Amino acid sequence: MIGAGNVATKLGKTLFLKGFKIVQVMSRTQKSAESLASIIGARAISEFSEIIPDANLYLISVPDDAISEIVSKIKPVHGIVAHTSGAVGMDILQKSSGSFGVFYPLQTFSKFREADFSVIPVCIEASDSETRQNLADIASQISKDVRFIDSFQRSRIHLAAVFVNNFTNYMYTLGEEILDKNDISFDILHPLIRETAEKIQQQNPRKAQTGPAIRNDKKVILKHLGMLKDEPEIQKIYQLISEQISKSSIKKS
Amino acid sequence: MIGAGNVATKLGKTLFLKGFKIVQVMSRTQKSAESLASIIGARAISEFSEIIPDANLYLISVPDDAISEIVSKIKPVHGIVAHTSGAVGMDILQKSSGSFGVFYPLQTFSKFREADFSVIPVCIEASDSETRQNLADIASQISKDVRFIDSFQRSRIHLAAVFVNNFTNYMYTLGEEILDKNDISFDILHPLIRETAEKIQQQNPRKAQTGPAIRNDKKVILKHLGMLKDEPEIQKIYQLISEQISKSSIKKS
Repeated sequence: MIGAGNVATKLGKTLFLKGFKIVQVMSRTQKSAESLASIIGARAISEFSEIIPDANLYLISVPDDAISEIVSKIKPVHGIVAHTSGAVGMDILQKSSGSFGVFYPLQTFSKFREADFSVIPVCIEASDSETRQNLADIASQISKDVRFIDSFQRSRIHLAAVFVNNFTNYMYTLGEEILDKNDISFDILHPLIRETAEKIQQQNPRKAQTGPAIRNDKKVILKHLGMLKDEPEIQKIYQLISEQISKSSIKKS
Repeated sequence: MIGAGNVATKLGKTLFLKGFKIVQVMSRTQKSAESLASIIGARAISEFSEIIPDANLYLISVPDDAISEIVSKIKPVHGIVAHTSGAVGMDILQKSSGSFGVFYPLQTFSKFREADFSVIPVCIEASDSETRQNLADIASQISKDVRFIDSFQRSRIHLAAVFVNNFTNYMYTLGEEILDKNDISFDILHPLIRETAEKIQQQNPRKAQTGPAIRNDKKVILKHLGMLKDEPEIQKIYQLISEQISKSSIKKS
């Protein structure tokens, strides 16, 4: 395991629990390498020179910006070199010695939440078909949802993930801010947020759309814009999204 | 029950199952009144003149625009007249004969999904304290989460709900569109969407924010804007939300 952050930790723990032997955990600092290594029976290292050459898999799980440096510093190895990033193409690994690929678990990971890998889609891409199969075999041990996805598609999945994860979370933040200002506890929205997410597991979101914008209910929209008059930027977000939703309703009918 | 739509149906069924006697279901058409009335042991009616005057509660659960007309047409009754709307103030009921109030279950209801009212917040407001207590007593029979919320606060909750429900659902739609164009099945995002919603039940969304915008990762943001070049309006949404998220990160630090 190269990296000891959130993804490396969740992935390392899960692989370990599924019976994989994690030989080494490498991180910039010995201390962070140790904190992961100690719980998955691995040796902690912090120098490239310490990396053993005969592991089956070298999993690079670090911030996107750091991948390139790692690939250039890693010495020739026998096993597969793979990264776990959604946004970075497979090309970046071409400088590595032998077979390489991508092992991208499509999920948001938090320190304080357990990750159930069995339902997490793992997107696989590889330099050759044998490597592809090897990576898929490993992924199948931890997940029921293994997919072959090339770098182009993965970059689009990552963009879509920004909308449904990052931007959705920002919608939650705006909801929280509106309630905060009016001394209402955010937890009143928890069941609604949960149901909104559950609903589209059964029905596609286009069909699930409700609210003033899809009804083109100008009275309510104007009332809401009025409530946001002191926050012109949030007002602009409200207006722009509402316009788009209204347009999509016209397209449909 | 006045109304036989989604909210009326879910609410009517739940009250019925909790032992409340639903005397009548009124709807514009006899047929839709009957479809609900038949499953909750009530009589279906479609004329205002048929409304009995001695029920304890007259629950108006119709589209917002229709409430005013119903209030003006309903003849004097002895029980409480209440509506179930998030966006409409309590004032609208002032023309009704006696005590009145609001009984607003804060949730999104779909035909094909069961609603678990026990966890749905019910927001209560009333013309007087006795009515308030009566409505709260009824709400407590179906939900563990009953709150006293006035019309001003309720209007803000409704605005916040537009962000976390309607706009979030639109973010899902954009995610789906991006995948559709690249022949990737939307279900690959289901676990991510679910986890994004679950996460903020434990941690506030401001702290849960991740992604290129909060990191101010201009390289990835530019790449994403490039991918959206053929959809200037979606590009604009991406840009506007990313700017706001980036700003919030500056405010924090």
